[in-house]
Amino acid sequence: MTDPLVIREDRDAITHLTLNSPGNLNALSDEMLAALQKALDTLSKDTSQKVIVLKGAGRVFCAGHDLKQMQAARQAEDRGAAAWKDLFDRCSHLMQTLPRLPQPVIAQVHGLAAAAGCQLVASCDLAVATDDARFGVNGVNIGLFCSTPMVALSRVMPRKQVFEMLTTGEFLDAARAREVGLINRIAAPDALDATTQELAETIAAKLSSAVKVGKQAFYAQADLTLADAYALTGDVMVENMLNAQTNEGITAFLEKRKPDWATS
Amino acid sequence: MTDPLVIREDRDAITHLTLNSPGNLNALSDEMLAALQKALDTLSKDTSQKVIVLKGAGRVFCAGHDLKQMQAARQAEDRGAAAWKDLFDRCSHLMQTLPRLPQPVIAQVHGLAAAAGCQLVASCDLAVATDDARFGVNGVNIGLFCSTPMVALSRVMPRKQVFEMLTTGEFLDAARAREVGLINRIAAPDALDATTQELAETIAAKLSSAVKVGKQAFYAQADLTLADAYALTGDVMVENMLNAQTNEGITAFLEKRKPDWATS
Amino acid sequence: MTDPLVIREDRDAITHLTLNSPGNLNALSDEMLAALQKALDTLSKDTSQKVIVLKGAGRVFCAGHDLKQMQAARQAEDRGAAAWKDLFDRCSHLMQTLPRLPQPVIAQVHGLAAAAGCQLVASCDLAVATDDARFGVNGVNIGLFCSTPMVALSRVMPRKQVFEMLTTGEFLDAARAREVGLINRIAAPDALDATTQELAETIAAKLSSAVKVGKQAFYAQADLTLADAYALTGDVMVENMLNAQTNEGITAFLEKRKPDWATS
Repeated sequence: MTDPLVIREDRDAITHLTLNSPGNLNALSDEMLAALQKALDTLSKDTSQKVIVLKGAGRVFCAGHDLKQMQAARQAEDRGAAAWKDLFDRCSHLMQTLPRLPQPVIAQVHGLAAAAGCQLVASCDLAVATDDARFGVNGVNIGLFCSTPMVALSRVMPRKQVFEMLTTGEFLDAARAREVGLINRIAAPDALDATTQELAETIAAKLSSAVKVGKQAFYAQADLTLADAYALTGDVMVENMLNAQTNEGITAFLEKRKPDWATS
Repeated sequence: MTDPLVIREDRDAITHLTLNSPGNLNALSDEMLAALQKALDTLSKDTSQKVIVLKGAGRVFCAGHDLKQMQAARQAEDRGAAAWKDLFDRCSHLMQTLPRLPQPVIAQVHGLAAAAGCQLVASCDLAVATDDARFGVNGVNIGLFCSTPMVALSRVMPRKQVFEMLTTGEFLDAARAREVGLINRIAAPDALDATTQELAETIAAKLSSAVKVGKQAFYAQADLTLADAYALTGDVMVENMLNAQTNEGITAFLEKRKPDWATS
Repeated sequence: MTDPLVIREDRDAITHLTLNSPGNLNALSDEMLAALQKALDTLSKDTSQKVIVLKGAGRVFCAGHDLKQMQAARQAEDRGAAAWKDLFDRCSHLMQTLPRLPQPVIAQVHGLAAAAGCQLVASCDLAVATDDARFGVNGVNIGLFCSTPMVALSRVMPRKQVFEMLTTGEFLDAARAREVGLINRIAAPDALDATTQELAETIAAKLSSAVKVGKQAFYAQADLTLADAYALTGDVMVENMLNAQTNEGITAFLEKRKPDWATS
């Protein structure tokens, strides 16, 4: 019997998913991608869970792709092309699954987030990291420019900072990562779990149906023109107002009491 | 006789507009939206005024929508849907009026800018705030995700920071707000008015016809491809050069004297 | 015999281009634009050079357009319109040449980067500056709003910060320029050349064929939707993997030795 590659632990309405392959620094192997995709797909239909925390077992968060596995594909007649295309399709699908989930996803980062591991941090809605965590897209060091990770990074960070990381392979520390927008909060290593859990609990205490439509609208409006973005989000606000729980939330606020969202 | 909801005070070519409903923290009620829209529409045709400062009377800048008024709409046969759609249309129109005005608009923020009040700050071209001002999109706390405010915020701030504010309802202090790009300058409370006025005077001293075409081009080019943005702004530069006052400005510079823009 | 307007010095695979017109603060005159465009076009086909450093001779990096030359065009029958349109076309073509070059380009900035000079910094992939360098788009001071420079600046910096610079004509210091994303690194004046050279050498040591496709993909994906960006970069990753040198790079990494990229 083997340990699962992704461990799911539910703390009430908060799900912690742990990448559990410390031996290869939680590399995004075919098996790890499949296990994580499956866990996320299951959670996408699980209305009982309000927030997802994604973290790594062992010394680091995630060091990127499984290079041994990628090299093995070179034995094929096409020298690996079809296998790699399939790999990047599956990996990019995973990265795009994160913003599509109804629940906010928080990356809880310690040690290292490298290459596709850094892409994972950028693709989560939020990120908390230890003060000694480091972030890089260092594929360039081995001749494989981090072209897919840059899609995620360049949508959350200033352009020149991303270009520097991509071409030097150098790492950001946590303080700079927060300054430029890659992560939200920083904690001492022994306070990381509590800091992430506190952020998750803050969000889990909100009306999850409102958070769900809000998150969906957040990514939907990001690439629209100002006028189109307002047209879309105006409709979202009307739907949100029609939610009976929102009526309760506003009524409670006006009556200076806590909302009764027991069934939200 | 009642106080006007929006007070206009012209200090030479700088117009100060004050949201004047301190009793409800300058909420963007139907009446306030109408009064502010009217004031801005009037200013859009007023070529004598070069800069607009937007501020709030009483303890805070603006706390967002008028929730009592929004709740009252629930009595309608459609449970409020049509009224809210109309409300968000009017509010979004107001927010989009600010970048379309010929004059730069500076938000002068003290106390609090919350929900649609924070959206107002993000929608102004520039913002100055007291060092103790706080900024949040806290609708999520009452079950109403700030979907329209996020349109404005996500266009001026890094994505993960906006997501955190939207889902936690927590507030930024002024220092962090400046770090992430939501505001431009910070002042002690007793220096706020002077700091904003100084920024306004700096801009008002420029050639307003150039500032007008520049502001228009700024927002027009923002969503274009690089090639299209350069095509558009190249034409704007040619027009700007053809302005007789610009000839005077450049000539004066080359002659090491002040330009004579008396009639600009 | 006159000094060339752009001096090219190759330090092994790193090319240093020096704007060499200190008498007019390295203004982007017709002649300077032509000389720089020619140098860049030559380098675009020179596979021996891996990184380009762009710097200025004399007291400053670059103070912008050549105003005397621009004013002289007013004598034409069309009052200058055709000449300026041509000028901005050539200048915008130059600015768009920088991201299209196969090599990363580093702006090495000292003293001042003003107006189109600041646009040049924003248009380079990376920037290193002295701790006393200043950055501004100050055309507004002479009645010529920096509409073309804002295209480059608004793609690397937060929107409100750019608007402030455009409308006030005021300058950023190096620390703030790095905070907002305009530059990457800061050095003491006597360490500027060494700091830039070190960054250039770090990048030049990478597999240049990978850096080339990565840079191209970086700008190609920036304006695409998330799905389209991943489709494009996934294909780029497959091509990158098929590069024999990348095979060597990954193999070397897995064998814990340095890659043999002698012919890269």
